[in-house]
Amino acid sequence: MSSLVHAHAAILSIGDELVRGQTLDTNSRLLSSRLMQLGIETVEHATVGDDLGALVGAIKRLASRAPLVIATGGLGPTDDDLTRDALAAVLGDRLVEDPDALAQLSDRLRSRGREVSAAQRMQALRPERAQCLRNDFGTAPGLFARIRVEGAEADIFCLPGPPGELVPMWESLVVPQLRPEPGLTIRTRFLKLVGIPEAEAASRVPGIMARDASPQVGITASGGILTWRIRYRGPMPPAAAESEVDRVAQCIIDAMGEHVFATGEVTLAAAVLDALKARTQMFATVESCTGGLLGAQLTAVPGSSAAFAGGFVTYTNALKQSLVGVRSETLDAHGAVSAECAREMAAGGVERTGADWCVSITGIAGPDGGTAEKPVGTVHVGLAKREHSGARVSSRAFRIPGGRDDVRERSAMSALAMLWFALRGKDPSAKLLWEQETGSV
Amino acid sequence: MSSLVHAHAAILSIGDELVRGQTLDTNSRLLSSRLMQLGIETVEHATVGDDLGALVGAIKRLASRAPLVIATGGLGPTDDDLTRDALAAVLGDRLVEDPDALAQLSDRLRSRGREVSAAQRMQALRPERAQCLRNDFGTAPGLFARIRVEGAEADIFCLPGPPGELVPMWESLVVPQLRPEPGLTIRTRFLKLVGIPEAEAASRVPGIMARDASPQVGITASGGILTWRIRYRGPMPPAAAESEVDRVAQCIIDAMGEHVFATGEVTLAAAVLDALKARTQMFATVESCTGGLLGAQLTAVPGSSAAFAGGFVTYTNALKQSLVGVRSETLDAHGAVSAECAREMAAGGVERTGADWCVSITGIAGPDGGTAEKPVGTVHVGLAKREHSGARVSSRAFRIPGGRDDVRERSAMSALAMLWFALRGKDPSAKLLWEQETGSV
Repeated sequence: MSSLVHAHAAILSIGDELVRGQTLDTNSRLLSSRLMQLGIETVEHATVGDDLGALVGAIKRLASRAPLVIATGGLGPTDDDLTRDALAAVLGDRLVEDPDALAQLSDRLRSRGREVSAAQRMQALRPERAQCLRNDFGTAPGLFARIRVEGAEADIFCLPGPPGELVPMWESLVVPQLRPEPGLTIRTRFLKLVGIPEAEAASRVPGIMARDASPQVGITASGGILTWRIRYRGPMPPAAAESEVDRVAQCIIDAMGEHVFATGEVTLAAAVLDALKARTQMFATVESCTGGLLGAQLTAVPGSSAAFAGGFVTYTNALKQSLVGVRSETLDAHGAVSAECAREMAAGGVERTGADWCVSITGIAGPDGGTAEKPVGTVHVGLAKREHSGARVSSRAFRIPGGRDDVRERSAMSALAMLWFALRGKDPSAKLLWEQETGSV
Repeated sequence: MSSLVHAHAAILSIGDELVRGQTLDTNSRLLSSRLMQLGIETVEHATVGDDLGALVGAIKRLASRAPLVIATGGLGPTDDDLTRDALAAVLGDRLVEDPDALAQLSDRLRSRGREVSAAQRMQALRPERAQCLRNDFGTAPGLFARIRVEGAEADIFCLPGPPGELVPMWESLVVPQLRPEPGLTIRTRFLKLVGIPEAEAASRVPGIMARDASPQVGITASGGILTWRIRYRGPMPPAAAESEVDRVAQCIIDAMGEHVFATGEVTLAAAVLDALKARTQMFATVESCTGGLLGAQLTAVPGSSAAFAGGFVTYTNALKQSLVGVRSETLDAHGAVSAECAREMAAGGVERTGADWCVSITGIAGPDGGTAEKPVGTVHVGLAKREHSGARVSSRAFRIPGGRDDVRERSAMSALAMLWFALRGKDPSAKLLWEQETGSV
């Protein structure tokens, strides 16, 4: 087969549960991020339901738009799995049974004492001119075909939807077949910032986002975090492109100061952990309204155990008292959602874990529990630093807009931001992005 | 303006950060789920970058496919925000400044002691025949227009990307304008299951997923949870449609038994919390490799405090000993990732929180830390039930395939499943879906 240059790509996600909003599609993001690392830019994601006509239309359209199409989903053993049929229709092929795929399926099931049912056997079908892609982590093989639409050629890889099957197949069977455009260099860089509003950040580097500039620069605000994206795409040799990207990145970094917490795909949690590791210090958490979310974000980072000790989820008032020593007088006088309670939680966390730092979070995530004085979104974050005699404790009050998830996410982010600024020797009370944007306390 | 029936919808997400995989798009799911509740079915999601040509092409195409298009993103104050320009190009309109939008922007910024910059002022522009949609939670107004493509008409609503702005605008400004098809009834039902493989579940109700059946039935496996989707779409009166859906649901429920944990959009965490509330029992967690993820999932459910007390994140061995009383002999003899340690963690959790139940999780999430004997994915879950004298403790060993995130997610799910089966009086050691699918321990 002649070699086709995969200058750019399109991604198709398949499933009623996706298009109707029951399930969140995370595959498209994963695949386009991996493609970008390989120098192949994704130009579109599309999601359609388990409908043969919609599927055939989407495959043809995407194949006419990009020489590489990656499709996920619709390969399972049930009647609503139509990717095989759609690909056969696009190719004008009939479906044939692939003996190797059937043998593998049979081996797989036999090793667990099961037989191949009629439904499962359907998974060994492929369009006549397509190839099966072996799946070592599930029963549905993938499919590969070269298709031709309106005179244009495209390679299509159809992969199973579950990430545990998709990712190994992507690595071992798709990546080796990809051919990024020769002579084209793509270099990207991300700068991640906390505690500065989007308009303010943009105004510090005027003109940098001109649409015809090279490298091209863009900015995004999401969940209280700003991201500058710098991207070179052109004929320069890699080293020259790299130094162009470096030059622009440095210009932005100089203008943004301590708000920059990472260059690259690094979360604020990972940046905070790195800063702690550099000081060989340990960190603990005491969470109420976030219920473990901050700990989950920290431990999502590989190697987090070098700087994160653990902590407490003190969801009830009784556990705030028994696990971290919040005083009943404090709860009576100020309530659990108060600066005083947050401070005692943080101090108790340092004392009972032996960590160098402890962050505490207590707040009203909603939808219920708000009052006129303490509406939903009222959150107090405490920060304690171990000292020779006890702990130095500070706290901040936030009023976070949005629903329960927003309040919890922003609470965790704000707690990390407080610790980030403290570790940089800055005032941990520096205003954060969403505070300036929403005019909250 | 004549009234247009919104028989179905398409969703467009806009942003380089989305199409290139830097940011996960959660808006499309949210919007299509809300549309479905209103009886409007989404037929496609598309995501394109900050490129005027791509944007214009996508708007035209989606408008020719559906009479309702909801677009998010690209309305901000920076040069890569091109939704206004794209809509103007589709309409053939020039951009004009909207006096009300400018006044609102100016008031908003003045209340925080700031002036409208030239960049921010751009946000008050709209295509001549479009309307601005007031944004009370950010600076960028939305846009509404009726567009005509290839003789077909469509309504397009362009909304800001941040969910904290999108959701209130959706509720107050978009929903009242929506007109689902009159005389068309849509009824959907979800049945959620744990501990049964997809092929096994499907084989118990043969033929139910025939593509031409009504109600239509589909099944999806995701993260160890199976979901049956039942949907009626047709001319029946609502009560008759409802009873048709009921009939099919009951037929599936009868065949699936205790594996069904919810009818509706309910997480396993929420189902477990409901089962505990019905018994007025409290639950606690002791998490190691999940670091708070299980607690975060539980407390994502509003009202979780009625059944979830809190617990411990014992990420280091030192905290396993000091916070929940794991014995150093246990750690020396068996290691932290062992049934023995999981059981002591769970027993300690019940003892130190006073809760009725405690689940513990200890495992190797990777990518490092695996050994030949305990490879990455080895996880032990402990379950303790308070009894008159101490606690009754059981445990299970799992070998979970996939990467760090998979191992952590499946660990949390498996812990909840153990508790679910225990609360239903079933053997908590019943094999779970992913175990049968992957043949693990």
